[in-house]
Amino acid sequence: MNKKNIYPMYKWMKDLFPLCRSISGQGSRDTLHYIQKILKNLKIKQVKSGYKAFDWTVPDEWNIKDAYIKDSRGIKLINFKDNNLHVVSYSEPVNKHLTLNELNKHLYSLPSQPNAIPYVTSYYKKRWGFCLTENQRKKLKSDKYHVVINSSLEPGHMSYGELLIPGKTKKEIFISTYICHPSMANNELSGPVLTTALAKYISGFEKHNFSYRIIFIPETIGSIVYLSKNINKLKKNVMAGFNVTCVGDDRAYSFLPSRNGNTLSDRVALHVLKHKIKKFIKYSYLDRGSDERQYCAPGVDLPVASVMRSKYGSYPEYHTSLDNLSFVNQSSLEGSFKIYKCMIDILESNFVPKMKIFCEPQLSLRGIYPDLSIKNSTANLKIMMNILAYVDGKNSLFDIAELLKEPFWKIHKEAIFLQKLKLIK
Amino acid sequence: MNKKNIYPMYKWMKDLFPLCRSISGQGSRDTLHYIQKILKNLKIKQVKSGYKAFDWTVPDEWNIKDAYIKDSRGIKLINFKDNNLHVVSYSEPVNKHLTLNELNKHLYSLPSQPNAIPYVTSYYKKRWGFCLTENQRKKLKSDKYHVVINSSLEPGHMSYGELLIPGKTKKEIFISTYICHPSMANNELSGPVLTTALAKYISGFEKHNFSYRIIFIPETIGSIVYLSKNINKLKKNVMAGFNVTCVGDDRAYSFLPSRNGNTLSDRVALHVLKHKIKKFIKYSYLDRGSDERQYCAPGVDLPVASVMRSKYGSYPEYHTSLDNLSFVNQSSLEGSFKIYKCMIDILESNFVPKMKIFCEPQLSLRGIYPDLSIKNSTANLKIMMNILAYVDGKNSLFDIAELLKEPFWKIHKEAIFLQKLKLIK
Amino acid sequence: MNKKNIYPMYKWMKDLFPLCRSISGQGSRDTLHYIQKILKNLKIKQVKSGYKAFDWTVPDEWNIKDAYIKDSRGIKLINFKDNNLHVVSYSEPVNKHLTLNELNKHLYSLPSQPNAIPYVTSYYKKRWGFCLTENQRKKLKSDKYHVVINSSLEPGHMSYGELLIPGKTKKEIFISTYICHPSMANNELSGPVLTTALAKYISGFEKHNFSYRIIFIPETIGSIVYLSKNINKLKKNVMAGFNVTCVGDDRAYSFLPSRNGNTLSDRVALHVLKHKIKKFIKYSYLDRGSDERQYCAPGVDLPVASVMRSKYGSYPEYHTSLDNLSFVNQSSLEGSFKIYKCMIDILESNFVPKMKIFCEPQLSLRGIYPDLSIKNSTANLKIMMNILAYVDGKNSLFDIAELLKEPFWKIHKEAIFLQKLKLIK
Repeated sequence: MNKKNIYPMYKWMKDLFPLCRSISGQGSRDTLHYIQKILKNLKIKQVKSGYKAFDWTVPDEWNIKDAYIKDSRGIKLINFKDNNLHVVSYSEPVNKHLTLNELNKHLYSLPSQPNAIPYVTSYYKKRWGFCLTENQRKKLKSDKYHVVINSSLEPGHMSYGELLIPGKTKKEIFISTYICHPSMANNELSGPVLTTALAKYISGFEKHNFSYRIIFIPETIGSIVYLSKNINKLKKNVMAGFNVTCVGDDRAYSFLPSRNGNTLSDRVALHVLKHKIKKFIKYSYLDRGSDERQYCAPGVDLPVASVMRSKYGSYPEYHTSLDNLSFVNQSSLEGSFKIYKCMIDILESNFVPKMKIFCEPQLSLRGIYPDLSIKNSTANLKIMMNILAYVDGKNSLFDIAELLKEPFWKIHKEAIFLQKLKLIK
Repeated sequence: MNKKNIYPMYKWMKDLFPLCRSISGQGSRDTLHYIQKILKNLKIKQVKSGYKAFDWTVPDEWNIKDAYIKDSRGIKLINFKDNNLHVVSYSEPVNKHLTLNELNKHLYSLPSQPNAIPYVTSYYKKRWGFCLTENQRKKLKSDKYHVVINSSLEPGHMSYGELLIPGKTKKEIFISTYICHPSMANNELSGPVLTTALAKYISGFEKHNFSYRIIFIPETIGSIVYLSKNINKLKKNVMAGFNVTCVGDDRAYSFLPSRNGNTLSDRVALHVLKHKIKKFIKYSYLDRGSDERQYCAPGVDLPVASVMRSKYGSYPEYHTSLDNLSFVNQSSLEGSFKIYKCMIDILESNFVPKMKIFCEPQLSLRGIYPDLSIKNSTANLKIMMNILAYVDGKNSLFDIAELLKEPFWKIHKEAIFLQKLKLIK
Repeated sequence: MNKKNIYPMYKWMKDLFPLCRSISGQGSRDTLHYIQKILKNLKIKQVKSGYKAFDWTVPDEWNIKDAYIKDSRGIKLINFKDNNLHVVSYSEPVNKHLTLNELNKHLYSLPSQPNAIPYVTSYYKKRWGFCLTENQRKKLKSDKYHVVINSSLEPGHMSYGELLIPGKTKKEIFISTYICHPSMANNELSGPVLTTALAKYISGFEKHNFSYRIIFIPETIGSIVYLSKNINKLKKNVMAGFNVTCVGDDRAYSFLPSRNGNTLSDRVALHVLKHKIKKFIKYSYLDRGSDERQYCAPGVDLPVASVMRSKYGSYPEYHTSLDNLSFVNQSSLEGSFKIYKCMIDILESNFVPKMKIFCEPQLSLRGIYPDLSIKNSTANLKIMMNILAYVDGKNSLFDIAELLKEPFWKIHKEAIFLQKLKLIK
């Protein structure tokens, strides 16, 4: 724990960037082990291939050592070791000599982004394929190509990380992020590194009210598996939750609500963005596209929202090799961290104040209302008086901040002072 | 039943136009018999003059054979046989020789619309009178006029039609239209002919969920009498209802809500207008003026709304001889029919879907989510995914369409597909 | 009681203006006695110094006979007899010879308003001081000054007035105004004189539904003391309440809501301002500053709102000698009186009408709906019909006026007519 809450998120990202993550396999496991070195109490868990979760089945474990396309001169034109996006994730092994025509059926490029290697997956249907830039593709000539994918698809495990930080109560704040994308920075490594920093920050609390459940899972299959094992507990205890993703670039701040749209998570996220950022993009739940699809599914209905920078799908670099380490930076990660930190701080310091006195308290006796009354002299007491006017034993401090259209931290500071004066409890 | 749901509404209207309808009498009975030829199961019912319904009493039956104003040369200047609007509805019989001054007390014209014969009624006070254009009136000179109204006002009956189309459930859709106006087209014949077409359309369903109660009644006294006999049944069973009137011209679409304003009828009507018509006039319940006054009265409170073209009272031709067969046309009637058809279709095909799977289903295994994931490849699945995100066992398909701001039919098509995949039931 | 409800409010104010009111003492008592001459049934009550009310203690009684600052030539530069604002309210007695430097520590002026004597109080800390205009202050030269305050601060009483006007029910309308400011006109004498007029007006009712509780108290300490003695009764019976202050100038109308913001008091006040004044300032409860701080405190929660002209704190003359008899006038007081009168009238004449007839009544039989129906002939009946459409046994007449966006008095007039027709009760 450092004092200023500055964590080397970008450094962690650089370390993790080269690993070939997918929804299973060594790359994802290595990622979890790396995070475990930072978060000692992180538990790495696994389910077996074939594990059934609701409508889904955990597929075989995928691992890959090498892959390339060689031309007839023996030159490697496409090389997995250059960029792990070159191979379709979950490609079955192959070792073949093919004509360009035959090869073309297994190639993926983006004509509209000729410099970008697309990110392609085929988790649930066996195939193999290579991804390359449109420019690389255009250079391929009629030739006999040697294609090799040295991968394995075998019964094994799907791994995920879980960190529980117990608080005073069993009520939980739930934070989820995903670790299944290979070398891409905003979507997804920004999510795990910010979540890691957040877990460090929370672990440093001297005491805290809520328990924290922080998970690092493969997207979709991982959240579904996690729900299948924990849904009752989650439905009972989760008071607020966030799906942390796309928090590393500097183009925008954005917000994606829960399905309900008015949970504590939604309200706190909007409050912080409104008072700290002012200009941000407010998406609808219809714009969703990550694990809120599971967490907010009918019958699951967890209060899970997302504060993001550029949302997945909304920026051209998304799901290509252009979403790389130069698309994100430490300063943007810190900006996002501050928002999440602020949301946690609000959740932790919110309470339902109760008035200890009937009618207006005599503030002048307590030295905070002027004992001499002259025109305009009481302006600075306005907020304190306004807080007292809404302490009715039902409104939380956060509700009062919203009612007064003031930032929570401003209201909280005054409320602490009112507590010291024994006016509220 | 025809396949394309095109019904000769304008032709029916032309046939019915000359009949001298009123709140009772042979003209109304003939109208009901004409409709009965199209709707075989229509029951023609009657109540006796003197029948008490809440605050009202059914008046004597009125019939008329002939009426005219002759000048001293014996020329018929005003002739009931030219246009049945020439006689004040419910005029008592008269056979007199009068000066112009004496006659003038019994004449009604519209100085602001000099070519229009106004429509005038005097159901509950005995009087006689003639309606004529302002231009006709100006030509009347000092003379001795012979006025004859060969009418009768005697104890008899008030007639109305009722068609019950039983469905799978006892829950009802209620459709009411009125048959008490003489030769006028938009208000009112457009209502009965569209309702007749709608009844034909519903009768042609192979199966349907709701029962349909379709009534053809005199306005006000008819709906009050009908309520006095059926209110308990209606309050128990009616899920949605419509008062069909003014659906024949091509100037506008408009909507008049129920008193509650947010019933299923209101929501479905607005949904269809919003997605099919886009630009339409949205009236307030304070603009009401037809039988919703009874159906939505305090204590009655049926969910009855109206989709109209030009609303009664809002167009200059209203309640005059200018509201004639050239003011309406088959194409406008078909446009209105399509809206009502679409509302019925929504009511019939709406249901509360239930998810059969917890969390997101694995769509790729079902061949509808790509088994290969590459950027931008999933856009076409968005609606299906969004539907699944809101299937919580409480939202109806219609609710989901409103939540997703999509037309019901688009959502319904995808929902049927999801049913086939056994993802929802 | 006069017929036109014109009360000499400005004359009363002129009589009361010279008295040196404070939160206790002879000036306040004399004020109450003056009002008692107008309101015979006003009870003058008192609590002893030292009386504990919630967080507060009633201070010693303060009385003052004379006060001045004399220069070395014996000329009175500052004289309490010129203007009682010259002495800090609750100044302890003093009789000293001081240099200008020493004197300056006890002088209060407003550099930004060089012609205004500020109003300064020091109820809960013993000190003495003089208030003067900045211009007067600038003229003070180095000299030996003789300062005399001939005041007393001794155990005594705090006085207040209470008038109960019993009505048919025990449910109360609560009206509070304050009598603790020395010679200032808008804040505060406009409050007591308008409240006196209102009490006269209510006492003149032949019969009335509500009981009226009207109090004249010192601000803050007075309302807290009053609450400490009456809170249970008030919480049980008060249906609406108003804090009457700042109702004498002609610059604006304004509204300050109760903490709840949607009580009957708030709704009636907004209704009257909307329909009678149209343009007025709508403050938030966060702009509060008078006894609603006590009446609307959490746990007290009385429905107390304020209709004002220029709100305390919002006009430059506030709490200075410029808030004098030329800042207010009889005509502005009458304008404010009319608003309060109208609110009382609405509260008194509001009721929950009940329909005696099911469905629409047959108005033509009662001579109010034309028995001859011709285009456009029913426009004048629209409001009556609209009232009947909302008489459901739950809506009060006031609710109906709000629903129809019509002034209450218009709706009430028609409702009385409907009662005479025995259509509603």
